[in-house]
Amino acid sequence: MKASAIANANIALVKYWGKRNKTLKLPYNSSISMTTEGLMTHTTIEFSKEYKEDLFILNGKTFKKGSKEYDDGVGRFLNVVRKKAGIRLRAKIMSYNNFPTAAGLASSAAGFAALALAVNQALCLNLNKKELSILARRGSGSASRSIFGGFVEWKKGKRRDGLDSYAHQIVPADYWQDFRMIICITSSREKKVSSRTGMERTVRTSPMYKAWLKTIDQDIKRIKKGIKDRNFTLVGETAQENCLKMHALTMTSKPSIFYWNSTTIDLINRIIEWKNQGIECYFTIDAGPQVKIICLEKDIKKIIKRCRYIKGVEKVIVTRPGRGARITNKHLF
Amino acid sequence: MKASAIANANIALVKYWGKRNKTLKLPYNSSISMTTEGLMTHTTIEFSKEYKEDLFILNGKTFKKGSKEYDDGVGRFLNVVRKKAGIRLRAKIMSYNNFPTAAGLASSAAGFAALALAVNQALCLNLNKKELSILARRGSGSASRSIFGGFVEWKKGKRRDGLDSYAHQIVPADYWQDFRMIICITSSREKKVSSRTGMERTVRTSPMYKAWLKTIDQDIKRIKKGIKDRNFTLVGETAQENCLKMHALTMTSKPSIFYWNSTTIDLINRIIEWKNQGIECYFTIDAGPQVKIICLEKDIKKIIKRCRYIKGVEKVIVTRPGRGARITNKHLF
Repeated sequence: MKASAIANANIALVKYWGKRNKTLKLPYNSSISMTTEGLMTHTTIEFSKEYKEDLFILNGKTFKKGSKEYDDGVGRFLNVVRKKAGIRLRAKIMSYNNFPTAAGLASSAAGFAALALAVNQALCLNLNKKELSILARRGSGSASRSIFGGFVEWKKGKRRDGLDSYAHQIVPADYWQDFRMIICITSSREKKVSSRTGMERTVRTSPMYKAWLKTIDQDIKRIKKGIKDRNFTLVGETAQENCLKMHALTMTSKPSIFYWNSTTIDLINRIIEWKNQGIECYFTIDAGPQVKIICLEKDIKKIIKRCRYIKGVEKVIVTRPGRGARITNKHLF
Repeated sequence: MKASAIANANIALVKYWGKRNKTLKLPYNSSISMTTEGLMTHTTIEFSKEYKEDLFILNGKTFKKGSKEYDDGVGRFLNVVRKKAGIRLRAKIMSYNNFPTAAGLASSAAGFAALALAVNQALCLNLNKKELSILARRGSGSASRSIFGGFVEWKKGKRRDGLDSYAHQIVPADYWQDFRMIICITSSREKKVSSRTGMERTVRTSPMYKAWLKTIDQDIKRIKKGIKDRNFTLVGETAQENCLKMHALTMTSKPSIFYWNSTTIDLINRIIEWKNQGIECYFTIDAGPQVKIICLEKDIKKIIKRCRYIKGVEKVIVTRPGRGARITNKHLF
């Protein structure tokens, strides 16, 4: 009844933005991501009669019933699991992220992917990867993608029960050896508006939302082709455009949402300059102020050096296509 | 054959963005602006046989045939005028702006409004205000609005010859005595991408452009009602939303256009904070990095004090609804 798993965060190249079903976390649009290497969550779960209530300990901090973290996240997920498994046991969950939580680095994606695997093992549910992806999705939409390594597509699906809304691998991590992302942390504070709130408000109020949805099929097609052909320009340009469309949505919501700070916009302007100077790089930005620079291994040193000159860049993390979620024997308690 | 005129710049509350006819400068959408007080262009023109070629002296710098400033702007405009008046005389034009040129402060609007009036006087064309607005429009679309004082609407019109595309006054300058704008100069460098290029690229490539056009009628209606009722919240909110939609368009163009710098985004984030703290203010931003804070007279001091704490705010200019273009007896040469 005890198991541990590790999962990596993923960074979307075509963003997931907007839910058609909030409970089942079904999206309006398909999305594509790169599973990172090294930005990970390590989770241990134990179900036991000895626990009188669920306990969720994230980075050493305990969350119980009544906290937002538990009620809207882990608690809800555990109820889904208990219903599925036909049990009533309470659980203790301990998780560590090795990167800033809730600052636009998709910590919930890694978290729920790891939790889905751990639960599957602890309760002997025998779910296959597709089923794990669906289960992880119930915790956090983008977690459906972190089940897989390399480059991953989450197909939106059409069914109302969500059984056709899950991720699959486009190519494994070692398919594109010199693909890199440089994550520039510009603020480790929690973001002002959660992705969930941002999505909801966008769908409800942005006059641009329908136009966004109309462009997704082409973005997906282009990025998939770019990944398969290892066409860096095609992947980078399409990802950057897609990210800007997403932020155009949040800005045109009512009230408007700004995920950017001054360092974010400095980086945007500089990355465009660097590209014009011949260092081919692009950016993508999620629901937070961090900037992820998409580049190739050969340019890593030059780009990092330039990043360090920019005021407000607190930390730089280099990542690459990484492994999918996996079980580990190392328990956290 | 010599005359001088003064015109004030105007700041749009519903932006003009996108031309349906580039030569005639006919817009896809109607727009609304406030004519400023004190941000002005003073222009003297003289037509004379003695001039062998047109001479355009802006802020002490001379532009002739072959320069972008002359060929794409004043030269073209003078040819329109000469054709209209049936003359072939060359002209000398001297202009001074008392604010930074081409940095997103609509210097061309004030410039061509003043020029239209000066030309009308110098050549005794006897144009009325509507005709002056149409003439000024041929120089720069937004110049059609600077003919009038106070709050001004430029109706897009439907005709292919543009004779129904001109501005009119909604209310005069003294109608709303405590309405203010604080212009925060964050960079006095010329902008990287001109409005003209920005508009063209947006219309051609932004997937959001149609959605923008669909929202304009409502924005126009709301702002007009807000102005007539002196409903500050309605005017401020609508203007801010409209500006963000315009910038969403430029960002989602291909290649994308960013008019903002780090101070621009700092100001955006702070203005939203101040409003949440109870100082009612909004922002609008044109095709440049300057931020125009929309506020009421009673909050001017508090806001200016706060602006001065923000790194990168080079200069702060307070303006209010101002006069329309007018003839002056003061000649610059």
